[in-house]
Amino acid sequence: MGIRVNFENNLGELKSKITEMGELSVVALERAFKALKTQDVEIALKVIEGDTAIDNLEMDINQFAIWLMAKEAPVSRDLREIIGVLKISSEIERVADFAVNIAKATIKIGNTKSLLEITHLEKMKELSIDMLQKALQSFLEENIIFAKEVGDLEDEVDQLSGETYKKLTAYLSEHPEETNQLVQLLFVNRYLERTADHITNIAESTAYLIKGQIYDFNS
Amino acid sequence: MGIRVNFENNLGELKSKITEMGELSVVALERAFKALKTQDVEIALKVIEGDTAIDNLEMDINQFAIWLMAKEAPVSRDLREIIGVLKISSEIERVADFAVNIAKATIKIGNTKSLLEITHLEKMKELSIDMLQKALQSFLEENIIFAKEVGDLEDEVDQLSGETYKKLTAYLSEHPEETNQLVQLLFVNRYLERTADHITNIAESTAYLIKGQIYDFNS
Repeated sequence: MGIRVNFENNLGELKSKITEMGELSVVALERAFKALKTQDVEIALKVIEGDTAIDNLEMDINQFAIWLMAKEAPVSRDLREIIGVLKISSEIERVADFAVNIAKATIKIGNTKSLLEITHLEKMKELSIDMLQKALQSFLEENIIFAKEVGDLEDEVDQLSGETYKKLTAYLSEHPEETNQLVQLLFVNRYLERTADHITNIAESTAYLIKGQIYDFNS
Repeated sequence: MGIRVNFENNLGELKSKITEMGELSVVALERAFKALKTQDVEIALKVIEGDTAIDNLEMDINQFAIWLMAKEAPVSRDLREIIGVLKISSEIERVADFAVNIAKATIKIGNTKSLLEITHLEKMKELSIDMLQKALQSFLEENIIFAKEVGDLEDEVDQLSGETYKKLTAYLSEHPEETNQLVQLLFVNRYLERTADHITNIAESTAYLIKGQIYDFNS
């Protein structure tokens, strides 16, 4: 097998690990939100436990990438791809961390009358998952169209996050007895906004890989 | 000049850029807190503007590291050092981002009677800066003692953060008219807790560099 074929195979393995990490993070976000919505501490604990697998995958990817760099001493585009893989895996890890943060907020809220319906959090979660899937597809298929769509969806999440902040703080001023839950929902609102930011970073790294040019979809 | 000397020189330059980034982040944290304490929007805006220089330094470091890897194809400890530099610069960048977040919270609070004195936020800021300076010193001098001290200080920040959360939410239940400021202070409390986490990651990366062994000072 030629050096080139070997390198492509190794890069392919790195990419499939990225896909696995991405899929696990989608599951983590879905589960964390289900836990929040149904106030189910058991599911929340599963999200927290499940994060170790995602962290381990990131370490795997880092070590594999370092080994590949040491072995092949890649240059130009190949090197950019490996650095891209490292950046993207660290962004996915942060998305998964936000799922854990949502799970922890769920536990802090406990069992009480849910105020989720006064927020846009569910819609924001759906948009974020859509964004993550598009960002991953963009990376795997080297498709810049999907990467650009991620940037557009982020604007929607930002908009919804601003509105949710206003609704929650207004409600809080009138219902101080709900402080605990409302503060936690304000944190979840922030986590989902940040989740969307990090998914946008994945799309930007991908766009950079494809075009060799730096993008800023956040601004 | 031998290849070895050349490599050491380049690594030295990377390390001096890390120091510069660290120093700028200390300034950003100090300034952001001063803005929060004196409710000075001008200073807050300076922190936000100043973040570009830190972001640019991180990009510089990334590109320099990639160039060095492509040029020297380093292995074992040398490679670990460069990967360490990349990890540490990305953690410092996140610390600087929290300074920006504190500056933004300051702007959202605006001019009103400050409730900072009911919190431990100033003490947490001081501990964080102490941690960052120790973590950087540990990295530059390859001194594991400082890295361990960072882990101890993080426990203190966590403790103070927990207490501050309780104080702020209790106050909020009784003073709903202060919702805006109190919610922003709750966010600042979270940012400082996360700042301490990321500084601990710097210390862990440093400990890994020195000992070639993975540490978890967070747990």
